[in-house]
Amino acid sequence: MAGNSFGDLFRITTYGESHGKAIGVIIDGCPSQIDIDEAFIQSELDKRKPGQSKITTQRKESDIAHILSGVFEGQSTGTPIAIQIPNEDQRSKDYSHIKDKFRPSHADYTYQVKYGIRDYRGGGRSSARETAARVAAGAIAKLFLQKHGISIFAHVSGVGKLEAPNLDLSDMNDLVRVRESNIVRCADPATAEEMIEFIDQVRKNGDTVGGRISTVITGVPVGLGEPVFDKLHADLGKAMMSINAVHGFEYGSGFAGSEMLGSEHNDIFVAEEGKPTQTITNFSGGIQGGISNGMDITFRTAFKPVATIMRDQATIDESGSETTISGKGRHDPCVVPRAVIIVEAMAALVIADHLLKYQSNAR
Amino acid sequence: MAGNSFGDLFRITTYGESHGKAIGVIIDGCPSQIDIDEAFIQSELDKRKPGQSKITTQRKESDIAHILSGVFEGQSTGTPIAIQIPNEDQRSKDYSHIKDKFRPSHADYTYQVKYGIRDYRGGGRSSARETAARVAAGAIAKLFLQKHGISIFAHVSGVGKLEAPNLDLSDMNDLVRVRESNIVRCADPATAEEMIEFIDQVRKNGDTVGGRISTVITGVPVGLGEPVFDKLHADLGKAMMSINAVHGFEYGSGFAGSEMLGSEHNDIFVAEEGKPTQTITNFSGGIQGGISNGMDITFRTAFKPVATIMRDQATIDESGSETTISGKGRHDPCVVPRAVIIVEAMAALVIADHLLKYQSNAR
Amino acid sequence: MAGNSFGDLFRITTYGESHGKAIGVIIDGCPSQIDIDEAFIQSELDKRKPGQSKITTQRKESDIAHILSGVFEGQSTGTPIAIQIPNEDQRSKDYSHIKDKFRPSHADYTYQVKYGIRDYRGGGRSSARETAARVAAGAIAKLFLQKHGISIFAHVSGVGKLEAPNLDLSDMNDLVRVRESNIVRCADPATAEEMIEFIDQVRKNGDTVGGRISTVITGVPVGLGEPVFDKLHADLGKAMMSINAVHGFEYGSGFAGSEMLGSEHNDIFVAEEGKPTQTITNFSGGIQGGISNGMDITFRTAFKPVATIMRDQATIDESGSETTISGKGRHDPCVVPRAVIIVEAMAALVIADHLLKYQSNAR
Amino acid sequence: MAGNSFGDLFRITTYGESHGKAIGVIIDGCPSQIDIDEAFIQSELDKRKPGQSKITTQRKESDIAHILSGVFEGQSTGTPIAIQIPNEDQRSKDYSHIKDKFRPSHADYTYQVKYGIRDYRGGGRSSARETAARVAAGAIAKLFLQKHGISIFAHVSGVGKLEAPNLDLSDMNDLVRVRESNIVRCADPATAEEMIEFIDQVRKNGDTVGGRISTVITGVPVGLGEPVFDKLHADLGKAMMSINAVHGFEYGSGFAGSEMLGSEHNDIFVAEEGKPTQTITNFSGGIQGGISNGMDITFRTAFKPVATIMRDQATIDESGSETTISGKGRHDPCVVPRAVIIVEAMAALVIADHLLKYQSNAR
Repeated sequence: MAGNSFGDLFRITTYGESHGKAIGVIIDGCPSQIDIDEAFIQSELDKRKPGQSKITTQRKESDIAHILSGVFEGQSTGTPIAIQIPNEDQRSKDYSHIKDKFRPSHADYTYQVKYGIRDYRGGGRSSARETAARVAAGAIAKLFLQKHGISIFAHVSGVGKLEAPNLDLSDMNDLVRVRESNIVRCADPATAEEMIEFIDQVRKNGDTVGGRISTVITGVPVGLGEPVFDKLHADLGKAMMSINAVHGFEYGSGFAGSEMLGSEHNDIFVAEEGKPTQTITNFSGGIQGGISNGMDITFRTAFKPVATIMRDQATIDESGSETTISGKGRHDPCVVPRAVIIVEAMAALVIADHLLKYQSNAR
Repeated sequence: MAGNSFGDLFRITTYGESHGKAIGVIIDGCPSQIDIDEAFIQSELDKRKPGQSKITTQRKESDIAHILSGVFEGQSTGTPIAIQIPNEDQRSKDYSHIKDKFRPSHADYTYQVKYGIRDYRGGGRSSARETAARVAAGAIAKLFLQKHGISIFAHVSGVGKLEAPNLDLSDMNDLVRVRESNIVRCADPATAEEMIEFIDQVRKNGDTVGGRISTVITGVPVGLGEPVFDKLHADLGKAMMSINAVHGFEYGSGFAGSEMLGSEHNDIFVAEEGKPTQTITNFSGGIQGGISNGMDITFRTAFKPVATIMRDQATIDESGSETTISGKGRHDPCVVPRAVIIVEAMAALVIADHLLKYQSNAR
Repeated sequence: MAGNSFGDLFRITTYGESHGKAIGVIIDGCPSQIDIDEAFIQSELDKRKPGQSKITTQRKESDIAHILSGVFEGQSTGTPIAIQIPNEDQRSKDYSHIKDKFRPSHADYTYQVKYGIRDYRGGGRSSARETAARVAAGAIAKLFLQKHGISIFAHVSGVGKLEAPNLDLSDMNDLVRVRESNIVRCADPATAEEMIEFIDQVRKNGDTVGGRISTVITGVPVGLGEPVFDKLHADLGKAMMSINAVHGFEYGSGFAGSEMLGSEHNDIFVAEEGKPTQTITNFSGGIQGGISNGMDITFRTAFKPVATIMRDQATIDESGSETTISGKGRHDPCVVPRAVIIVEAMAALVIADHLLKYQSNAR
Repeated sequence: MAGNSFGDLFRITTYGESHGKAIGVIIDGCPSQIDIDEAFIQSELDKRKPGQSKITTQRKESDIAHILSGVFEGQSTGTPIAIQIPNEDQRSKDYSHIKDKFRPSHADYTYQVKYGIRDYRGGGRSSARETAARVAAGAIAKLFLQKHGISIFAHVSGVGKLEAPNLDLSDMNDLVRVRESNIVRCADPATAEEMIEFIDQVRKNGDTVGGRISTVITGVPVGLGEPVFDKLHADLGKAMMSINAVHGFEYGSGFAGSEMLGSEHNDIFVAEEGKPTQTITNFSGGIQGGISNGMDITFRTAFKPVATIMRDQATIDESGSETTISGKGRHDPCVVPRAVIIVEAMAALVIADHLLKYQSNAR
C-alpha cells in the first residue's frame, strides 16, 4: 500500500531512488501567500548533503532544489509545491558487488522478498538519500511556522557513549551558531570536540557508531494535537521513527521518567498576570494529554550505527548460499551530524500539519 | 480535526468519556469469516479492568463488551463491528473538587484551552478508561492474527528502577502463564515479587511510580511495513505513543543500540536449507528498512508515573489564580500492570492493519 | 478495506445491520461548543423513519437517537459524538424465504461473493436502514452549519416521468412548510398531488417507481472546495452516489448543460458596491473550478425504483439453480419521500467537512 | 487542505500549473513487477495532447513523459513512480489581458478569493492541462489492470443535442479502432461525422459546445467496492466529477432509470453451469449494493461547454468594477474528444485502487 506520504493537511509525498534520475517531493496543503525563500531551502539542503567533512560520506552531490510548481512571484499559491533534486554522482558500478547479496542490517533482503525486485544500486529507495526530499519539504514548513513564531532546534547530544550536558535554551540563535561551528553539530563545544575525535577514530577502524539527537520546539501555542490517537507526541514519534536508522524516541522525561515517582515528576502550574500559564518543571515535554501546553516541546531520537562498515562480513546471497560481502562505497561513519536537519525537517512537518488542524478547529 | 481513528485498512474509531453513558469502538475493515470468540474478548477486557488487586485502582467496572453489529452466527461479516462497554461506577461527585482546577500533569488545562469546554469528570475523554475500547478492538485483531499464526506477548519489564532480566522466549505459553500468576504482570517471578512490594510501598506513601513494558511479536511473515513513512516500527511507535502516559518507545536495540559500533550491531544472516532466513543476533528487532524480516519483533515502551497522587499539590484554577488541589479519587499507584494488555492490543491493531496492506500488495 | 467512514475533518463512521441490535454513528471532528439540540436530531430522524404514510413502508421503528458521548451540559466538547439507534421491529422470520436466494437488483449476490457470508435478514448491512445513522450525523452537521448561516433544502422534484416546475427559492422557510405539508415531500403542491396519486397506484400494482430529488444550499461563503480532486461538487457527488438506490448526480446545469453552447452557459459576473459578487445566471451551480463562488449551490440526484416488488420473480439460489422469489416484507413503493432528509444529511456532512478545511486554510 | 491526491492504495498526487516549468504526478502504491511500457504511456498522452485536429486547441505541447523513479529494468519496483511532463509552449503574454479580470465561468474569481493569489497564466492550476498528469498515471493503472484482464473503453456519445446510438460492445478492439479513426472520438461513424461538422460550425462562430462521454469497463471480477461510503460507483462518480468541466454523472440506468418501474428495472439473474452468474439486463451498470457483480460496468459523464469563447463578454475586474473581456488564446471548441482518454484514465485509477482493496480483503 501507498506509504510515501506524510501528514494530513500539510502533506508531503516523496519519490526517488539513490541512483535514479532524481528524487523529489510534492508538498500539498501549504497555505498560500507564504514567502518562499529559495536560498533558505538550499541552505537547509546544504546541511544534509554528503561530502561536508571528514566525518561524513565522500559521495558528491550538489543537491540543488528546483521548484517546479506552486510558487508564483515568490509566494506560495496554495497549490502543490513540487521540488526536484537531480541525482548527479551515481557511480552505479560501485554497487555491482551487492547485486545478488544481502548486506547485513540493510533493507536489501526485506525489499527483495516484499517486492520481488529491487533497485540494488546504493540501496535504491531505502537509501537515506530520500531524506533530502524531506529536508526540502521541511524548509517550506519552517517558512510557514516562522510566520507563526515557531522555531525548531536540534543538535547532536550523543555519539556512542559520549553525551552532551543539558543546554541552556535561552538563546536559540547562539545555539545554532555554536552547533554550526563544528562538524558534528553538537551545541556544546567541548563535547563536540570529543565526538569528532571519536568518530574519526571509528572511521579509521572501518567501523561506524550510533548517536542521539535532542530537539526543542519553541513558540507552539496551547492546543496543537488531536487526541486520542493523533496526539502531538504520537505524530512526532512516528515522524522520527520513519527516519532511516532511528531505533528510539522519547519526549519530555522519556525513559528516565519511567523510573521516577509521581511526586517528583508532576509539573506544577504557575500563572502570572498578563503572562501565559507555565509549569515550573517540564517533564511533560510541552505536551499534556497529547496537546501542546505552551511550554517548550522537547524530545530525543536514537540512531543505530550505520550498517555499512569497511570490513568483510559473512552474509547470504539471493539463492540463500553463504558468501562474504566486502565493505566498499562511500558511507558515513556516523549518521547523526547530517541527520540533525532531517530531524528538524520532520518535526517542522508535524507541527505545520497540526497547526493547520488547530486552525480548522475554529468554532 | 478528527483524531479518534487508528489504522487504514483495519481501522478502529473509539468514543466515550470516563463518566459518560458508555465507551465503545467501531472496528471497520476486519476481514469476514473470522470466528468471533466473545469469551476471549471478555477475558482480554478483564485483564485491563480496574479493581483487580491491591496495586490497581479500586474503581469498580465490570467492563462487559456488547457486540452490536458486524457479527452473524458467530463470524465476522466484513461489515463494521461495533462494541459497546457501558459505564457503571460513575460517582461523579468525586470530581467536583476539580471542576474549576487544573490537575498538574493531567490534560485538564490543555483540553480546556483547546476546546473551551471539558467534561471534567474523571478526566473525561483524556481518561485511560478509553483504552478499554482499544482492548476490545485489539481482541478482534488478535483473533484475526491467530488465523495467520501471529502471536503477541507483552509483560512488565521495569517498575521504577527495578528491571527484569531478559526472558527466554522459547515457550510463549509458559511466559503468559507466569505473567498472569502475579498481579504486576512481570514474566520473571523474582522481579515480580520485588515490583509488587515496591508498588505497594509507593501506594502507601500516597505516591505513584512509572514503569516499562517489553513486547515480542512472533510469526510475522517477511514483508509487513510500507516505506518510507509507514514503516512497521514507525506505526508501532505511533501506536505506543498514543497510549496514555507513554513517554518513550524503542525497538530492537533501541537507545542502547545508539551507543554501539556497527561491527557489533549488524545482524548477520544465516540460511539453512528448508528453513526461513534468520539472523544470528536481532538488534534490528525483526524489522529492516521498515519491513518485517521474519525474526521476532521486539520493542519496549516507557510509562511515566500516574499524575494523580494522594497528596496536596499547588496548582491554578480556571481564572489563573493559585490554589491547592487535594489527592482524591481512585487511581493506580502504577499503570503498567493494567497497561500490558493495552500495549498488546495496539500492537495487534498495527500488525492486523499491515497484514491487510501486505495482502493488498499481491501482484 | 474499511469503507464505512465519510469525510476527513468532520468525519462520520456508521455501523449496524437492518436486523441487528442497533445501528449508529460516531461523529469525529465536530467542533466544540455547538449547542446540541436533541429534539432537532429526533425531528430529523422522524422525517426518515418508516411507517409515515400510505406511500412508505409499514415497518415500525421509532428510531430514537441516544447520544452516548461527546456532549456535556448540552454542548459538543470536541470529542467523538456517538449516537445509537436501537432496532426494535426486527421480524426476522419475514426473511427466511431469502436466506438462500439472491433477490434481483439487491446486494445479496455481491455481498455473498465478496464476503463469503452475509446477514440476509432485511438486507443486513446493505439495507437503507443504515441511512438513519447518516441522518443523525447530518443533524449534528446542520447544527454546526446553522452557526455559520448555511442552510440546506431538498425536495422531491420528480417521480417516474412526473416533474415539478422550478421553484422560487426566495422564501426557504415557506418551501420547507409546503414540502412538509404533503407526504411525498414535493415543494410544489400541484405536482405533489399527482405524485402521491401515481405512487399509490404503483403500490397497488405491487410495483415500485424511481424519482429525483433537487437540492439547494444557501449561505456558503466563497472558498469551499479543495482542487483538483476534492472539488466541492466532486465530494457532493460521491456523497450522493453513496446513498442507496442513487444512480445519477448532476450539479448546476448538469446533463442539460452538456447540450448548450458556451455563449448561453457562461455565468456573467455582476458586482454592486457593498454587496457580494454575484452572477446573473447560475449554470455553474454555485461552484467554479471546484470552489464555491457564493451563489446558491444546486444539484439533483436520481434514484432507481426500489428493487423489492410484490410480485414473483425468477432468480437463482446460492447453488446457482433457478428458482422463484416471491414479493414479501414491508417496503417502500417509492424511496424519494424518505430520502429527502438523507440527501440533506449527506450534503450537510460534505459542507461541514469543507468548512473545516476552509478554516484550516487560514494563512 | 491538501486535495491533490486521489485513491487510497493505488494513490496519485499531481502538481503543476498551465504555464509553470512542468506538470507531473507521483503514483504511490502501484504493485511491483508490472511491465512499464513507456511507448504505451506516450500513446495515451498523445490522445489527450492539444493540437491534434481542427476541432481541438492549437496550443502546441509535445507532452513527453519522463519517468524519474519507481521503475527498474523496465518493471515497477513497488516504490513511487514519478512522471514529469515539461511545459513547452508557455506564451505567457497571451494572458496579460486576464491578469486583473475574472473570466466568466472560469475559476479565476474563486481561486483569487480562496488563496489571495493566483497564477493567472492560462488558468494556472485550474487549467485542464493538469489532466495530462492524470492520463500518465492512468496509463500505469491500465498496465496493471491489463494483467488482471480488465479493459476500459470510453467514447464521445453526445455533442450538444447530437447523440450516438447504443453500441454493440461485443468487439471492443474494433470499437477502439473506429473511435480512433475520427477526430471526435465517437465509435459510431455516422454520428461522428455529424458531430465534427457541428463542432466545426460552433468553432467558426467563436462559440463552444458541451458533450457526453460513455464508458464501459469489462473483466472486473465480482467483489470490487467497499460499502457503505466507498461504493464502487461512488468512487467512479467522484473521479468523474473531479475532471474539469464535468457537470453530471450517472451509471447503469442513470437518470432515465429514475423514470422506470421496479418491474421493468430489475436485472434478473441467470446461471449456466460452468459460467459466471449473469443478469439478463444490466440496468445496475455492473454494480449492486456498491459492489461489482461481474457484468460490464457502464457509466456516462456530462461536460459543460468550454467557458472560453472567442467573443467579448461583460465581466468584473479584481477591484469589482465592470469591464469587458475579449476572447483570446487557444482553446477547444468542444472538450470531449480530448477528454475521452481522461475519463478512461480516472476510471482506471478507481478500478486499480479498488482491485488492491479487494486483494487486501483476502481472509
